[in-house]
Amino acid sequence: VLIVGLISGTSLDGIDAALTEVAEERGGLSCKLREFSTIPYSAELQASLFALLDARTPAAPALAALRDVCALNFAIGEEFARAAQRVIVSSGLQPQLIASHGQTLYHLVQPDGRTPFVRSTLQMGEPALIAQRTGVTCVADFRVADVAAGGQGAPLVAYADYELLRSPAESRALLNLGGIANVTLIMTRANPERVAAFDTGPGNMLIDLAMRSLFVPHQRFDRNGEIASQGTVNDALLEWLLAHPYFARPAPKTTGHEEFGSQYFGTAWSKAEALGCAREDFVATLTQLTARTIAAALPEGIDRIVVSGGGAHNATLLRMLADALRERFRQAPVVSLSDDFGLPVDAKEAMAFALLGFQAVRGESNNLPASTGAKNRVVLGKIVPGANYRTLMQSLWQS
Amino acid sequence: VLIVGLISGTSLDGIDAALTEVAEERGGLSCKLREFSTIPYSAELQASLFALLDARTPAAPALAALRDVCALNFAIGEEFARAAQRVIVSSGLQPQLIASHGQTLYHLVQPDGRTPFVRSTLQMGEPALIAQRTGVTCVADFRVADVAAGGQGAPLVAYADYELLRSPAESRALLNLGGIANVTLIMTRANPERVAAFDTGPGNMLIDLAMRSLFVPHQRFDRNGEIASQGTVNDALLEWLLAHPYFARPAPKTTGHEEFGSQYFGTAWSKAEALGCAREDFVATLTQLTARTIAAALPEGIDRIVVSGGGAHNATLLRMLADALRERFRQAPVVSLSDDFGLPVDAKEAMAFALLGFQAVRGESNNLPASTGAKNRVVLGKIVPGANYRTLMQSLWQS
Repeated sequence: VLIVGLISGTSLDGIDAALTEVAEERGGLSCKLREFSTIPYSAELQASLFALLDARTPAAPALAALRDVCALNFAIGEEFARAAQRVIVSSGLQPQLIASHGQTLYHLVQPDGRTPFVRSTLQMGEPALIAQRTGVTCVADFRVADVAAGGQGAPLVAYADYELLRSPAESRALLNLGGIANVTLIMTRANPERVAAFDTGPGNMLIDLAMRSLFVPHQRFDRNGEIASQGTVNDALLEWLLAHPYFARPAPKTTGHEEFGSQYFGTAWSKAEALGCAREDFVATLTQLTARTIAAALPEGIDRIVVSGGGAHNATLLRMLADALRERFRQAPVVSLSDDFGLPVDAKEAMAFALLGFQAVRGESNNLPASTGAKNRVVLGKIVPGANYRTLMQSLWQS
Repeated sequence: VLIVGLISGTSLDGIDAALTEVAEERGGLSCKLREFSTIPYSAELQASLFALLDARTPAAPALAALRDVCALNFAIGEEFARAAQRVIVSSGLQPQLIASHGQTLYHLVQPDGRTPFVRSTLQMGEPALIAQRTGVTCVADFRVADVAAGGQGAPLVAYADYELLRSPAESRALLNLGGIANVTLIMTRANPERVAAFDTGPGNMLIDLAMRSLFVPHQRFDRNGEIASQGTVNDALLEWLLAHPYFARPAPKTTGHEEFGSQYFGTAWSKAEALGCAREDFVATLTQLTARTIAAALPEGIDRIVVSGGGAHNATLLRMLADALRERFRQAPVVSLSDDFGLPVDAKEAMAFALLGFQAVRGESNNLPASTGAKNRVVLGKIVPGANYRTLMQSLWQS
């Protein structure tokens, strides 16, 4: 089945679209990338999103007009529809399904001291628009069902990691270096009940914020880790950064803009300036922070780390990670890229949602309670009929 | 198929749940009510909703924390799940599907002078919670697909009216007296392309606001129209009320709290006081306003008006409506209750959504572009898999 996976992550750069061939073979599932593209959010929409999400820290909740939430859901939906159209046209292929993660606007799964506390999560990017514009049935809004089942609604990609990357021969850590870094741990012959997954902390988020705000002309990210490679890690600053309480919190745990967004970034840069850090040193230290917190979060016995996400292009980060692993483990895990396993680093997350959507329309549960904390396995995703809905259902259920 | 229809209207009283048997027979659709109940919103949730929606007028948009929108979606969803559970338990029946309208929080389909204007609509009451709590697959969020197709996203009940209440023998106006009064016009042998539907203006909304705020102890509505029957219509006030620009606007048109909510109510009561109106006279005049604007909105040639909604219990309103019809038409339409057609007045709207849900899972388009202004027929509703999803799909598609 040809499925477009769509995702926009915490970095708010834009929307990744992966036209993926999902198949069931010998009882297992496989994914093969057929076409990939990323479209940036329009400048206006990105500005609205940053304004909304940066104001989202517990201390100062975003005050968003109800009207604007209503409008934003459709504005984001149009961008997702455009991203889907783009990858469909450039591939020349006709997908049967689109699976959209949408854009997370709020994630409220731990008491935050304010009332009312209601476990909940909010993704936007109206899928009815995607289905209407493309004519293709869309599965969307995956996180809510896991939260409804008592889970954290994250990490969801662990399910796809388990289906696609488990190995009978070696224990693996699947590491995604997005705005936030998250890891899925699959030990040799682990069953789904024993897959752990959690966020290790910031991935590229703080580095990106530094590139955006401290360099002129501003850059979106530290290309290939060049800036970090020009700086020196400041040990006093690193120690201060490592003292953030998130790193000591036991897994499972998730984090985001609320903890490591622009507010925390501002504090960190003030600290850096006070310590006499040049901005290159600051970027080097933030890069080291990501590397060190990942290494610290891994258990003994991992044979291989499979890296994906934008941070996989950051050579300095990968070098620092390898060093940190050698320091921490007698037998350091091998570091590979997910490309080596047929999942290109930039497309892996979007491909994972294609897989989740495939399971949803078939009514196969696609959450991993061991990773999310849900009370039971459930089918994540809402099915939004497009013009091909009847044909799709007939092909799925009449065999 | 047994389907629970769930709806909460503009009155914010609570949630109507109609366990409905929907069947296809001789090419037509039929609905039969098996069990009905209404549960009021919890006092806290109702207070939150009123605060949010009363602040929603164009002049002063609701400033709602993004966090609170996130939480509210789940809080409302829990109440909808509870309403579904209640009607299932009391019926002793096991439905195959739940169809939930949710609660409208914002409806933005006409430029309002503010930017960005994005045609959109926002309903809340997380259906993943309904599916999770009940184990029953849920169809929800019907309006967005019509808006995505260029429509107003309303009125949706016109589709069910056409399927269930059209007649080869007479021209009918299907009148629902909710917070807002809306009417569907189906002329003899009209095809779906010629069904008109629109809101005539306030139904019970202003009357309810008067009962809530002017009487001690406050009442939720004018039971049986008793208060209105004690007052005298104030002609000067009625003239002022009839001058509201909504009534002169050509159909199709929809309205709500934005135009006839507590802000407008406050202005109207000030006007009434200035004119020396007693509160009973004010209620009588508001009741007359509803009756007169309905009569004025109907075209010539209607043989019968079929009345449903809470206002159908208001004897004074029905008497005033009959009078207004006699004044306006040489041959006044007969006034019937929807009960006479197998659709109890309180349950009709919820039953209509059961019907819409039935069509959605079968992939049958269930909007009427002639009523909503949509560019094309589409399938409205998102399918949220519950524990019975595979069984349901097999029964739908393997025949």
